[in-house]
Amino acid sequence: MPELRKDPISDRWVIIATERAARPTDFKATPQPIKGGFCPFCKGNEDKTPPEITAIRKGGTKRDEPGWSVRVVPNKFPALQIEGSLGKRGDGIYDLMNGIGAHEVIIETPEHEITMTGLPRNHIASILTTYRDRLVDLKRDQRFVYGLIFKNVGSAAGASLEHTHSQLIATPIVPIIIAREMKNCLNFYNYRGRCIFCDMIVQEKSSETRVIADSGSYLAFAPFAPRFPFECWVLPKEHQTHFENLSNEEADELAGLMKLVLSKIESSLNQPPYNFIIHSTPFDQGKAEHYHWHIEIIPRLTKVAGFEWGTGFYINPVAPESAAEYLREVNGQTNEKGTH
Amino acid sequence: MPELRKDPISDRWVIIATERAARPTDFKATPQPIKGGFCPFCKGNEDKTPPEITAIRKGGTKRDEPGWSVRVVPNKFPALQIEGSLGKRGDGIYDLMNGIGAHEVIIETPEHEITMTGLPRNHIASILTTYRDRLVDLKRDQRFVYGLIFKNVGSAAGASLEHTHSQLIATPIVPIIIAREMKNCLNFYNYRGRCIFCDMIVQEKSSETRVIADSGSYLAFAPFAPRFPFECWVLPKEHQTHFENLSNEEADELAGLMKLVLSKIESSLNQPPYNFIIHSTPFDQGKAEHYHWHIEIIPRLTKVAGFEWGTGFYINPVAPESAAEYLREVNGQTNEKGTH
Repeated sequence: MPELRKDPISDRWVIIATERAARPTDFKATPQPIKGGFCPFCKGNEDKTPPEITAIRKGGTKRDEPGWSVRVVPNKFPALQIEGSLGKRGDGIYDLMNGIGAHEVIIETPEHEITMTGLPRNHIASILTTYRDRLVDLKRDQRFVYGLIFKNVGSAAGASLEHTHSQLIATPIVPIIIAREMKNCLNFYNYRGRCIFCDMIVQEKSSETRVIADSGSYLAFAPFAPRFPFECWVLPKEHQTHFENLSNEEADELAGLMKLVLSKIESSLNQPPYNFIIHSTPFDQGKAEHYHWHIEIIPRLTKVAGFEWGTGFYINPVAPESAAEYLREVNGQTNEKGTH
Repeated sequence: MPELRKDPISDRWVIIATERAARPTDFKATPQPIKGGFCPFCKGNEDKTPPEITAIRKGGTKRDEPGWSVRVVPNKFPALQIEGSLGKRGDGIYDLMNGIGAHEVIIETPEHEITMTGLPRNHIASILTTYRDRLVDLKRDQRFVYGLIFKNVGSAAGASLEHTHSQLIATPIVPIIIAREMKNCLNFYNYRGRCIFCDMIVQEKSSETRVIADSGSYLAFAPFAPRFPFECWVLPKEHQTHFENLSNEEADELAGLMKLVLSKIESSLNQPPYNFIIHSTPFDQGKAEHYHWHIEIIPRLTKVAGFEWGTGFYINPVAPESAAEYLREVNGQTNEKGTH
């Protein structure tokens, strides 16, 4: 059973998941992502993953068989375990609980040789509605207060399998970064009576220097104080608290904007490794006038070193105004059936 | 002039230092550390660095010439600029100030082919007292409230030059990670009336399962909730608030322990990239019953991916009890005039 342990100095929770590595000595070499060879996410290999949780399928096709376009399965090496109770307890000055949670993989297409941006817009929309549907389902589990959706692209961004996929982790505690964001946004709301993201959108639209693209209902911009070169945030222009309230029509528009922005990043920055992460209001906060869901896209062009770990300061050599201008002007090549 | 900008959502300060990269397109490829070839840190090349701030030298040798054993110079590509005023200001909902600070490099030896652990203990002690002396000097500058000492070893840990060195950055604001640690430690102090680190030392010494080494006045242990496999903290067993109060005798003992622990990590984990970072009480807090300086050593054996960025949760596949047992038992090979 994995453990969730809290570091009392930083207030940070850490998952100790020893099932994921056999012995300390296994860490002597850096693991490399599997390239080529057998892929458990390809069509025809459905029996090589744990049993399917859900899928978008052609009529008449069966669970755990080909015929799907988007497929969700439990992670074979989960960071958290779905069965069990939380077992919150202390150990002297320390606090811990059982490592309970859901850890799922969203396989975005049955085809191996394609990236998310190589998929048609309506296919990307069905990935987004799959995220939504999984969150709606997991929200019913009273043990979970948060569902984190994220995607790692490229080995330097942490991807261990090449085949395009995203991940979902549902957790029994609100992740500390989200909790801190909620607190800062609540401070702003208490002082000014408005959502800080809504104010940010007004200021960004008015100056336009950091705007990357605007699809009508969604905005993509480089944040004022980005940690990383070409960091980009995507969010609804109207106040929306929970990603899982996305409608099918909204998913279609958001899919178009995500495809555009990710294509711009991929084609102009030489297919960099990147992550994207959805930040949303916790499950148990029904109404949140002060928090606004958003997607953070982080190309991994710089290394994070001691200075960043030690301070939480980030040194960014590219001003967001330059990054936004560059990304606004480049074309996003959208070769479907991707050439990379 | 670099800028210090605050992200209002996370409260995090970011340094926008565009002098460090020419244009956005320069990021198309990942920069690689310079291997072999010309090294500005080697003896004989003293004129290839900015003028020396201080050095430990043989009697009769001259500034910016050979004859030194430890040498401190300004960083040639500083993240922050030493000259100027803070210029704190707003921009709509955003906050920023001039990127004022000191950014220095501590060149640990004139020899290129040696790592810190390959140096004799008294040489490592003189590196530690150099850290101390630079902090004491920078503390006099009223603009600075914090001095961060850190070391990056290996390209994956962010080192851009191979020749062994550490860095010091003095900043006009308390780094957010330190500020949050101080706050959590103050909460504990207000509740229990004791320093949490002092309590932690009692508990660790009593259980011994996470202890790696004990030199008498200093303890090295794996923290209860480590972010990374083989993460290790080193700290004085008596309550000490500011690293810069280190005596020469203390530096000698600490040097021995650092050499032992880093040698164990290097020899048993196949020379992994690593960082170490000194966490100390801010300059402007003279008395801190609640905070205890410590050194965090972070081997970089796992990749930090979307999940970690998105949540502040870390997934650690090695329990600290196993890591400590492993490191306790391995020998630290201390081949001086290092073989790697």
